[in-house]
Amino acid sequence: MEIFEKLFPPAEYARRTRAVQGRMRAAGLDLIVAQDPANMCWLTGFDGWSFYVPQCVILHVDAANPVWFGRAMDAKSARITTDLPDADIVPYAERLIHHPVEHPYDALAALIRDRGWARARIGVEMDAHYYTARCHQHLAAGLPEATLGSNGDLVNWARLVKSPEEVALMRAAGEIVSAAIDRTAEVMRPGVPQQDIIAEVLHSLTRGVPGAGGDYAAIVPMMPVGEGTSTPHLTWTDKPLPTSGLAMLEISGARRRYHAPLTRTFHLGKPPRELADLAKIIVEGVDCAMEQARPGNTAEQVEAAWQASIARHGLKKESRVGYSIGLAYPPDWGERTVSLRPGDQTELAEGMCFHIQAGMWLADYGAAISESIVVTPSGADRLTRAPRDLIVID
Amino acid sequence: MEIFEKLFPPAEYARRTRAVQGRMRAAGLDLIVAQDPANMCWLTGFDGWSFYVPQCVILHVDAANPVWFGRAMDAKSARITTDLPDADIVPYAERLIHHPVEHPYDALAALIRDRGWARARIGVEMDAHYYTARCHQHLAAGLPEATLGSNGDLVNWARLVKSPEEVALMRAAGEIVSAAIDRTAEVMRPGVPQQDIIAEVLHSLTRGVPGAGGDYAAIVPMMPVGEGTSTPHLTWTDKPLPTSGLAMLEISGARRRYHAPLTRTFHLGKPPRELADLAKIIVEGVDCAMEQARPGNTAEQVEAAWQASIARHGLKKESRVGYSIGLAYPPDWGERTVSLRPGDQTELAEGMCFHIQAGMWLADYGAAISESIVVTPSGADRLTRAPRDLIVID
Repeated sequence: MEIFEKLFPPAEYARRTRAVQGRMRAAGLDLIVAQDPANMCWLTGFDGWSFYVPQCVILHVDAANPVWFGRAMDAKSARITTDLPDADIVPYAERLIHHPVEHPYDALAALIRDRGWARARIGVEMDAHYYTARCHQHLAAGLPEATLGSNGDLVNWARLVKSPEEVALMRAAGEIVSAAIDRTAEVMRPGVPQQDIIAEVLHSLTRGVPGAGGDYAAIVPMMPVGEGTSTPHLTWTDKPLPTSGLAMLEISGARRRYHAPLTRTFHLGKPPRELADLAKIIVEGVDCAMEQARPGNTAEQVEAAWQASIARHGLKKESRVGYSIGLAYPPDWGERTVSLRPGDQTELAEGMCFHIQAGMWLADYGAAISESIVVTPSGADRLTRAPRDLIVID
Repeated sequence: MEIFEKLFPPAEYARRTRAVQGRMRAAGLDLIVAQDPANMCWLTGFDGWSFYVPQCVILHVDAANPVWFGRAMDAKSARITTDLPDADIVPYAERLIHHPVEHPYDALAALIRDRGWARARIGVEMDAHYYTARCHQHLAAGLPEATLGSNGDLVNWARLVKSPEEVALMRAAGEIVSAAIDRTAEVMRPGVPQQDIIAEVLHSLTRGVPGAGGDYAAIVPMMPVGEGTSTPHLTWTDKPLPTSGLAMLEISGARRRYHAPLTRTFHLGKPPRELADLAKIIVEGVDCAMEQARPGNTAEQVEAAWQASIARHGLKKESRVGYSIGLAYPPDWGERTVSLRPGDQTELAEGMCFHIQAGMWLADYGAAISESIVVTPSGADRLTRAPRDLIVID
């Protein structure tokens, strides 16, 4: 039995490689260094939790395929999960891990020189989570004749429009997260320790749904409770849920690393009138945003529709109302490209996917009822089937 | 009801701050920028999944306490989880998130200038996972009169020796991971889809044990199967477990962000003789390493004992046999300080904790039976109670 089923055929990775090389030509780049694990996976299929040490794929504008560069013990993962030829799976020595003076990217610079690319115009991912200041410093020191600069996250931008096969994975992730929201509503009760709720959520997200097992999400379940709902990124504690009050859950289904995130707000006991009203305002605002999320409209138009809707109730959201989603690794399921906010004039196109994060974090409490959507010719289509309202636990 | 119970009293955070300031004086630094989320939490208690955007604590050598700097929507998390005075919780504007030209660290540079530290000798964490090349570039550009360089990970080094209270948390994490290994042995059966095993593992790790709920681990469960065991960092797939063969599980218990990782190797059906032998060689090697893990011995002595033991059976491990552990956030539960390997002459002391990662990844298969330990006056003490052998599933 094959131990690993590759997600896409070699032709699809070749298509992506050509698309990225086209962007490289347009940007005047000979070589890119892609360290974002999602970019590595999208370009080659490489998958594994080894991104906590320096690793990357490099792609030359004229090459047949990218080159994987990583820690010796992870080279076998590259052989198992990618179709790259052995000559293009290049390990570095174990002694470079956490070495006080040397660094794995000394070896990366040597690889680039060995391939005859010492004088290349090289584009790196300056703000990718794991591309540290020290990675950059050692790479630059080892390539004194190269021109080193930002590649403008061009691989991230190449990932923006999803193929039908990718949208199918996003929809599977949507099924997975919908099932987990259902499960949460079953188990969330006053007095239950928070970690017991999260245990059920993770169990559901990981088992997945028939035909689609769950993968790990790029972010763990976040569940602010009570006044904690006035800020979005608190995780659970082992305190019991209150007899009466708020809990907000932000989770994502993941299917083969494709994500469909969702936020829902729960109220234990009868909700105060102002909270029920806020939930309605949010859902109405999301309706207005989705109405505008169609090919040809811009990202800022989608946000403006949301903002106009909540403004009718005297509200304003300072932070963006959404961002592009797709293939992702920790620590974030956003793609770091399009934001639904003023000034982002990206034109929406069929196959783009967004998390409309319609959360209002007020001074003492908050509520969020988000949607993950795919842009279709006829407008936004939801990736999930979770109930669109405040979920009241009586 | 308080929604968040702080882990340590203000005096403990003050003690840590003074200890770090002592290291800063010794290193000739006026100011440090700590972006590693574990360093942020250790210095202030700050906790939340907001490390996917730029944030940090900065500490001046003469200041009463660190200053938290982060995204506007996360400032409330800092108010909830730390004792920092409001004036030392400094948010940056939402529009700086994923901005193509501006960057949050423009605002950090402004904050440092505003505090009168424009000409400071500043130490940053050059290789911390989230301290990107772009963070460094913007910080440097905004502080032209400062001296900017590596701080030698001095906060990480300050974390190396755990207090008795921290060791108690490590032991709780050890109880949590031990229970999860027990649960895995109950559910691992031929033909079960891999994600169903992992769902049970995550459920167990998250519920925790009586008196100690589980927190999220810095790494998701890794479970290479069959030939996948020849490389350590593959995660699960939705293929069924084979009728006969290997599965390796590397997981960690986490209690209030303190970690006790553990790797165990399972064999479905009767194991081949060579595997059973390899397991015994590994356990014997770990015994020899633990025997040397006592105050006054060096990290490389511990490794040498392991290597000498397995060498008697003709084996050699290329990669380090362990590393320091403690407080951690994704993507790694290692502390990026001490490695058990040749050349590391760190002297062991009471309260240091290590993951002895005794894994042998051979050409076609592998096995690992690790231990998380704390150094006590009388030698190494295991943090877990999982069985120390190949786990055979009949």
